[in-house]
Amino acid sequence: MFLKNTWYVACTPDEFAGKPLGRQICGERMVFFRDADGAVAALEDFCPHRGAPLSLGTVRDGRLVCGYHGLTMGADGKCTSMPCQRVGGIPAIRRYPAVERHGFVWVWPGDPAQADPATIHRLHWADDPGWAYGGGLYHIDCDYRLMIDNLMDLTHETYVHASSIGQPEIEEAPPATKVNGDTVTTSRFMEGIVPPPFWAAALRGNGLADDVRCDRWQICHFTPPSHVMIEVGVAHAGKGGYHADPRDKVSSIVVDFITPETETSIWYFWGMARSFAVDDRALTETIRNGQGAIFAEDLDMLEAQQRNLLRWPDRPLLKLNIDAGGVQSRRVLDRLIDQEHAVALPC
Amino acid sequence: MFLKNTWYVACTPDEFAGKPLGRQICGERMVFFRDADGAVAALEDFCPHRGAPLSLGTVRDGRLVCGYHGLTMGADGKCTSMPCQRVGGIPAIRRYPAVERHGFVWVWPGDPAQADPATIHRLHWADDPGWAYGGGLYHIDCDYRLMIDNLMDLTHETYVHASSIGQPEIEEAPPATKVNGDTVTTSRFMEGIVPPPFWAAALRGNGLADDVRCDRWQICHFTPPSHVMIEVGVAHAGKGGYHADPRDKVSSIVVDFITPETETSIWYFWGMARSFAVDDRALTETIRNGQGAIFAEDLDMLEAQQRNLLRWPDRPLLKLNIDAGGVQSRRVLDRLIDQEHAVALPC
Amino acid sequence: MFLKNTWYVACTPDEFAGKPLGRQICGERMVFFRDADGAVAALEDFCPHRGAPLSLGTVRDGRLVCGYHGLTMGADGKCTSMPCQRVGGIPAIRRYPAVERHGFVWVWPGDPAQADPATIHRLHWADDPGWAYGGGLYHIDCDYRLMIDNLMDLTHETYVHASSIGQPEIEEAPPATKVNGDTVTTSRFMEGIVPPPFWAAALRGNGLADDVRCDRWQICHFTPPSHVMIEVGVAHAGKGGYHADPRDKVSSIVVDFITPETETSIWYFWGMARSFAVDDRALTETIRNGQGAIFAEDLDMLEAQQRNLLRWPDRPLLKLNIDAGGVQSRRVLDRLIDQEHAVALPC
Repeated sequence: MFLKNTWYVACTPDEFAGKPLGRQICGERMVFFRDADGAVAALEDFCPHRGAPLSLGTVRDGRLVCGYHGLTMGADGKCTSMPCQRVGGIPAIRRYPAVERHGFVWVWPGDPAQADPATIHRLHWADDPGWAYGGGLYHIDCDYRLMIDNLMDLTHETYVHASSIGQPEIEEAPPATKVNGDTVTTSRFMEGIVPPPFWAAALRGNGLADDVRCDRWQICHFTPPSHVMIEVGVAHAGKGGYHADPRDKVSSIVVDFITPETETSIWYFWGMARSFAVDDRALTETIRNGQGAIFAEDLDMLEAQQRNLLRWPDRPLLKLNIDAGGVQSRRVLDRLIDQEHAVALPC
Repeated sequence: MFLKNTWYVACTPDEFAGKPLGRQICGERMVFFRDADGAVAALEDFCPHRGAPLSLGTVRDGRLVCGYHGLTMGADGKCTSMPCQRVGGIPAIRRYPAVERHGFVWVWPGDPAQADPATIHRLHWADDPGWAYGGGLYHIDCDYRLMIDNLMDLTHETYVHASSIGQPEIEEAPPATKVNGDTVTTSRFMEGIVPPPFWAAALRGNGLADDVRCDRWQICHFTPPSHVMIEVGVAHAGKGGYHADPRDKVSSIVVDFITPETETSIWYFWGMARSFAVDDRALTETIRNGQGAIFAEDLDMLEAQQRNLLRWPDRPLLKLNIDAGGVQSRRVLDRLIDQEHAVALPC
Repeated sequence: MFLKNTWYVACTPDEFAGKPLGRQICGERMVFFRDADGAVAALEDFCPHRGAPLSLGTVRDGRLVCGYHGLTMGADGKCTSMPCQRVGGIPAIRRYPAVERHGFVWVWPGDPAQADPATIHRLHWADDPGWAYGGGLYHIDCDYRLMIDNLMDLTHETYVHASSIGQPEIEEAPPATKVNGDTVTTSRFMEGIVPPPFWAAALRGNGLADDVRCDRWQICHFTPPSHVMIEVGVAHAGKGGYHADPRDKVSSIVVDFITPETETSIWYFWGMARSFAVDDRALTETIRNGQGAIFAEDLDMLEAQQRNLLRWPDRPLLKLNIDAGGVQSRRVLDRLIDQEHAVALPC
């Protein structure tokens, strides 16, 4: 069960540089390419001639040429030419609204008439020279909601990431969860802690002492359909924590786009946006590699959890204190999915 | 859906030299071996004792010995002996009519009573010292009719085989399709073209100039159940093309036997028969390797097409001009399959 | 169809040294670990919090700590603690009776109330310093009854193990099968044979001549649910065979525990217990390697047989003379399974 009338991150532009990209989003098999104007186009990955995947073809003059018999599709899903053949009678294939923005390609797998690019999730840091970003993509065989649960409850860091970013203070500081319309926020504040290695280095890089006690925060923001942005940072203790003067703190945003492929698999786009040392490309790469290794630790657990849930389909999951973030996020999703389905039914 | 009361190419004799060969043909699991007279035998690949595949056994004195407990089966499917056991009560297993001819083993997966070796497809070149043959075998996960479509429309050469045998003139010359009883023929003639590398070499090998314009032809012959023989060749331009005097042309036959394994997989026997330089074994090997590499280019496309068709089961395929060969071949098959099923029903 | 109210060998203690072991037994997914007293515990492999497999976690102070969020389970299946959370309301998970005995871990996958450790199969040699044991574990994709059939009819040695322990005399000596309550015994005696290499070496190791004719025996004992112990040995010919004075013979026990994982897969624990040269560890290793290689020869055949039986589900297997051991064993099992199911039904 997922929302379809909404914008998902489908891919990054480098994934279809030179050749079309085939990718399944919310159960829809799509092919991504650039049209003659350089704009992103997304079509059904099915040649109307003999059913070959168009993603095995090539792009010529902004049109998609099927790799089997040369049928050529425009970005609007209409066939424009074919060898030895009039094309007037060839049925168009489905076009998916797609927009390139903030460094990602966003796609709308549902009703195209409702697709409004103005509703694409805004990433204030993405086009701001005061910020730097690095990230990656993982394919994981799990329900997208298991990943939302994972990110909206960072208690798991103590166990899954015990050897990297886990810190005993995390599980000692109970999280607080708030719902504001469709947004869910889970916050955890740790006071007077020793900054862990990542933050010690960030403090030094920002000209701040790293041998003093700090206040640390993790503020997870869920917004539909499945975006989780996590504000993380440290400030010198007693300077106001999250609200401290920028000269006393260092912070960044953990970026997570969780795009359903099927009911039990996802494309997981992860990254980090930071407002310190933004010109240090080596640091961007170091963070990316470190984050990639840490996030990979979740993969096995999520896939094992998914397999177990499929084996015990009737067994309810518990909703404990620490699960409030995921529980509230699922509640928002359930409501929106119900609305979407209600609209789709005849009155 | 495939014909069962017909002869299919099942394997080549070298595949069961020394040990029995297990192979599924039209959904029937068979084991092939040679009986005491050296004749080919095909039985159900199921030991009547405990169900072990007989193809894991050995051949002794023209009988098949089960590799589990030594039950011995004659070529007629009857058990002839077993250690410590009378064999009178052991039920016979199914025997499939099988004939070795033209360098292939032909099997009849349907009603044995109707199997007449006189109806095996005749390969005039196979036993003629004026011809040479080389070929190979691929397993492909696709409906056998997708391969018939592929071979009865060589337009795909321009796209799938762009870097090898594709030639722009192919798609500029519209094909013509004729039906004659159960045989379908699709022909394409290109006039005044530059001979591509393969044919330039063949011209030279036959003592003909290779630096002149040529007429080229591709004549695809479908015959049931799923054989496609393609006459291909070039003649010096203006000498009569396909009908030119043998001293002005060079030609060969592309040989394709498409044997269903299941509804969505095939054993694809491919090869080339030629009437020039027939004693040149190195040339046979060179052609075989080249053809194998080119035909391998079709595999990915056919398997991707099959997967796409299974994902969109209700979506009709188009029948365009270029598809006439495949469309007519399927029409012949549909008619014959209907006849076969009608006979099988009680009156 | 398998018995569930019975003791199966689940694993060996070294398999969960240091970290918990996840294993499916009779369709039940279990996790094995040691409690604070060092006793073996088996629980459902499902964290009651979010469904993660507990086998991905760790053991701390004799309790199982989930690797996802740190929920801690006691050996009784009750949650004892969790970060930031009262645990009173967390439901217990299923505990399986488990006992460590004779070097193996035995588990009872059925009704715990009926589990009596006194009914665990007794291995007289296991705790006797006059015996040595070596063995291993294979996972095989076949119904556990196919392995019982295999072991209760050693005729297959002549074919499956032709190059190792097979001997023509095996199939010349018809087996005799007796049923005694729930126990089935199949015996084969060969008189005046040349001792094969394994037994020649064993004779020498015991200070007995190896260049004389011998009497050889194989006595297979089936006991429910799926244990097969095979007494094997040789004695100098004419000295009484199986009943000969210990100074004239050498013998050992082939040990087989066949534990269903699912309806069509097993955990196969195999080994050999011997009462000669018991301090010779190198010999234990040599025998283990040899036996492992020979028993691996059965794997392909059993899995191929299983696949064939699934393809021909309606085809009855034959019950020939040599199959009496397996047939009688299945008859015992059918009776006990019927009893178990009858009890489970309401009166």
